[in-house]
Amino acid sequence: MDTASTPHIAIVGAGLVGAGWIIVFARAGRKVHVFDASPAIRDALPGLLSEALDAMARHRLIDDVEAILARIELVETLEAAVTGASYIQESVLEIVEVKRQVSAEIDRFLAPNAIVGSSTSGLPASSFTEDCVNRARFTVAHPVNPPHLVPVVEIVPAPWTDPDTVTRTRTLMDHVGQVPVVLTREVPGFILNRLQGALLDEAWSLFEQGYASTEDIDRTISYGLGLRWSFMGPFETIDLNAPGGIDDYARRLGPMYAGFAADREPSGHWSQEAVARATAERRAALPSTDLEARRAWRDERLMALLASRR
Amino acid sequence: MDTASTPHIAIVGAGLVGAGWIIVFARAGRKVHVFDASPAIRDALPGLLSEALDAMARHRLIDDVEAILARIELVETLEAAVTGASYIQESVLEIVEVKRQVSAEIDRFLAPNAIVGSSTSGLPASSFTEDCVNRARFTVAHPVNPPHLVPVVEIVPAPWTDPDTVTRTRTLMDHVGQVPVVLTREVPGFILNRLQGALLDEAWSLFEQGYASTEDIDRTISYGLGLRWSFMGPFETIDLNAPGGIDDYARRLGPMYAGFAADREPSGHWSQEAVARATAERRAALPSTDLEARRAWRDERLMALLASRR
Repeated sequence: MDTASTPHIAIVGAGLVGAGWIIVFARAGRKVHVFDASPAIRDALPGLLSEALDAMARHRLIDDVEAILARIELVETLEAAVTGASYIQESVLEIVEVKRQVSAEIDRFLAPNAIVGSSTSGLPASSFTEDCVNRARFTVAHPVNPPHLVPVVEIVPAPWTDPDTVTRTRTLMDHVGQVPVVLTREVPGFILNRLQGALLDEAWSLFEQGYASTEDIDRTISYGLGLRWSFMGPFETIDLNAPGGIDDYARRLGPMYAGFAADREPSGHWSQEAVARATAERRAALPSTDLEARRAWRDERLMALLASRR
Repeated sequence: MDTASTPHIAIVGAGLVGAGWIIVFARAGRKVHVFDASPAIRDALPGLLSEALDAMARHRLIDDVEAILARIELVETLEAAVTGASYIQESVLEIVEVKRQVSAEIDRFLAPNAIVGSSTSGLPASSFTEDCVNRARFTVAHPVNPPHLVPVVEIVPAPWTDPDTVTRTRTLMDHVGQVPVVLTREVPGFILNRLQGALLDEAWSLFEQGYASTEDIDRTISYGLGLRWSFMGPFETIDLNAPGGIDDYARRLGPMYAGFAADREPSGHWSQEAVARATAERRAALPSTDLEARRAWRDERLMALLASRR
């Protein structure tokens, strides 16, 4: 990519999610201007980036750490980050008033053709971009944490988002090696967290009713369903699981699944008692003091998985 | 393992699931006696086993195909398979009357200390073992297909199953390299298919309402949630996703998930219209004539995943 003539990417908000985005774009050869209002976050960023990039290099997911770092510039103001950028990834705090205020500031400095994606995991773009002059060029671009290791990005337009903004965000994500998923319109939780929520609700319900331990429920995924789901989605999975494909599967097994739904507990209910018991089981398996090390282990496993796919 | 003095394992029902079980036990060094009432299945079995074992050898999941094959004996009667076996894995047709009849036959020839696990994916053991003399030694031992590539096994006791039967089945599964999960009591669909059903219901609902294509919904799993779930279950995943662990996560995000549940469509409803549209999308992505090749691809991916974990 000819980075000399390609406009830079702006990252606004450089916590854990923002830092992942910096790596995504810089890894793909793009110049990245970064702004965060917090001095503590700005100070922590270089260490965070170096550590993440060194780990990726160990897994041979990237070659040249220095070249990637050289594309990243930490700037002093939001204006300096946004001015002249072709794309702005906003990853500030998940508070609607903060998102609204930062979106308004981005809006002020937006280049004529630039577009903006928000990393929000739950707030629809319509809740914080309504008053922007360029609101047609704002959308949600929701990653999974950490974005540089889990490639999916949910693109969720507000009612006033220009379809061209969606198309260009999708194309950009494709180009930088992410996997964009496009929603036709807003829905609370988008797709990924709604799917996670449905599975979590059932897991909590089974645990609360005492059918199995958290460890055993976890193993049905990590040694069962999750193996296939790491390379095939739920629709492709069932498409292959009946001789005649997905419609054959729906005919054979739809009634069975409808039967489970009939005696499913009211959803969205994670009782305090169940949470307390689950916490006791989890802390027996993994003391609080080991949480951080286990997160590092998780990221190592993700990197090994990505490396093995190549 | 000293196979000379260890009693053999009996496999009753040698279709796709039974064939996987044969490999599980023979791979672990156990002698396996196999019976199936269908001549067509008996005739197909040697080819099926050789093909599966050769593929595993290519992925270096096993070393000595001939040694494994040498432990497998196809016998002419159920009596010959079951007599003297320490454990019987029953994998006959998923029809309650067939399970009841075959269980009664196994019961007749059961050695004094032998135990029986049924591969049923939906029928509780209480629906087909009630009249067995040795019903305390019958349980469900539900695998995922194919059992030799996806290790989880759900052990689900009937009300009359002896706890010792559960313990011994769990120990055996551990010994042969499977990953046993123990349920305290029966529940329709057990754990794995209830979790799958909850996620599928939400996926169908989102698709039916037109939020995204089957391909894009699939990608939120296969490039998103499924990556983590291939080595961590849902509880460990959320335990690591909040600074203070699982209780912190429940406090922060429980209300958000409860909000999704509030506007969730009635579950268990896969409309004919949605199934027809999903089928059209899937057949455009993968013609019917390629389903079989894609299943082989899926098994290759599972083998590569298992190999990369070693």
